[in-house]
Amino acid sequence: MNSSQLFSQIKKKRSFLCVGLDTDVEKIPSHLKKFDDPIFEFNKQIIDTTQEFAVAYKPNMAFYEANGLKGWQSLQKTAAYIKTNYPELFIIADAKRGDIGNTAKMYAKAFFEDMNFDAVTVAPYMGEDSVTPFLGYKDKWVILLALTSNKGADDFQFLGEPPLYQQVIKKSQQWASPDELMFVAGATRALMLKDIREYAPDNFLLVPGVGAQGGSLAEVAKYGMNSRCGLLVNSSRGIIYADGTEDFAKVAGEKAKELRNEMDNLLNIL
Amino acid sequence: MNSSQLFSQIKKKRSFLCVGLDTDVEKIPSHLKKFDDPIFEFNKQIIDTTQEFAVAYKPNMAFYEANGLKGWQSLQKTAAYIKTNYPELFIIADAKRGDIGNTAKMYAKAFFEDMNFDAVTVAPYMGEDSVTPFLGYKDKWVILLALTSNKGADDFQFLGEPPLYQQVIKKSQQWASPDELMFVAGATRALMLKDIREYAPDNFLLVPGVGAQGGSLAEVAKYGMNSRCGLLVNSSRGIIYADGTEDFAKVAGEKAKELRNEMDNLLNIL
Repeated sequence: MNSSQLFSQIKKKRSFLCVGLDTDVEKIPSHLKKFDDPIFEFNKQIIDTTQEFAVAYKPNMAFYEANGLKGWQSLQKTAAYIKTNYPELFIIADAKRGDIGNTAKMYAKAFFEDMNFDAVTVAPYMGEDSVTPFLGYKDKWVILLALTSNKGADDFQFLGEPPLYQQVIKKSQQWASPDELMFVAGATRALMLKDIREYAPDNFLLVPGVGAQGGSLAEVAKYGMNSRCGLLVNSSRGIIYADGTEDFAKVAGEKAKELRNEMDNLLNIL
Repeated sequence: MNSSQLFSQIKKKRSFLCVGLDTDVEKIPSHLKKFDDPIFEFNKQIIDTTQEFAVAYKPNMAFYEANGLKGWQSLQKTAAYIKTNYPELFIIADAKRGDIGNTAKMYAKAFFEDMNFDAVTVAPYMGEDSVTPFLGYKDKWVILLALTSNKGADDFQFLGEPPLYQQVIKKSQQWASPDELMFVAGATRALMLKDIREYAPDNFLLVPGVGAQGGSLAEVAKYGMNSRCGLLVNSSRGIIYADGTEDFAKVAGEKAKELRNEMDNLLNIL
């Protein structure tokens, strides 16, 4: 999916919501355990009730890999389910990969060719040759970690002058255009989105940290939005685990709708 | 495996060789294609002929994930094969993971509990709370990326004063003791190992980049060795793809033996 198509979806749905599928077998409602693949069943129901209000889904690889073979199967089925039933959705492999050229190439193959994800999150620590193998796939995206939403972000991302996260954003723009490169920028540091927009005016930003992590959606929009929205705001736990009963999918849909309604208002400033 | 046991193995085998299992279905000898699982068959034969000369094996996750479900199966079988047949070997999941707490926990479960790896490589970009979930498993290790062997290492790892890679090594020692924390430090920058030894005297270093990437084993030993060796030097392509015929495993064994013999000499300085 290219950036125009993504922006079209945002305008059509009046939403820039990304639903994080951090699906943990320990946390899903117990009545799902009777299914052959409880994780996939959970995802399927969540997707069905939230897709009207969301433009993107982001399965977090760790949660699937933690279940080994079975988890990998749940992931493949989830990606295929989305692409078959809702081809207009943008799907992100939240993998935070980063490795040397020949290895990165293998990851690109796994996510883009085998599973047909639209985007993959990549860690910048190893530099250009760990990022470029993910580029050059038509309408596929690298989402590079810049400023993350966790506490540990303070350990290294602010080192140097200008700070590391800024240098990551500046330097990586020499490798890829805003049509194939997004950045992760945490909602817990919304004010900094303003400063990021100075040197990355056109890139989409994937913004985690709204909801359970405490970031404010209004502030994210105020400081981070550009003329084509330029934001995908992720919520995981606040949607998918909002209810632990047989109503989980219905309640998830309601939570997604609430966020969409808030986003609808915020999109009026465009 | 704890550090004393690892050092015992090094002394016993007169080797600090780690064999990188970057097994690519496109690169393995064609006669293996007749096997149900060619990747596992390749690994098994390589392990059998090289284990006498190596103390560690390092499957690179990307190569397995690129084959989806089947790849994940090959990986599990490889890890189980080593632990069953050669329990004295140290196995490293070269995953370069780095994600927030709840996600990192899932990865720790996948690698340490489900597959019984001894160590996992972790990227430092997201800081303390992306690293600590891998700690606290008895006799398991985090191997943190510090100074990598690729060209892109120059993009960010030297930023700041002191440079980022030094700050990673210094700060992370506040989180974990040398009995559970190693660092990746590339052989292509052997002189810097001397400087790393000033502030990380006791940690094991996992050193990639000898062989195909051009690093010198003698220099790595000269600058990086400590009183308990403190080194695991990895070679992947130079061993596993040294021969592309039916003799591949025999030739791999010879290449591993050559490196071991060189290491045997270098260990004499201890």
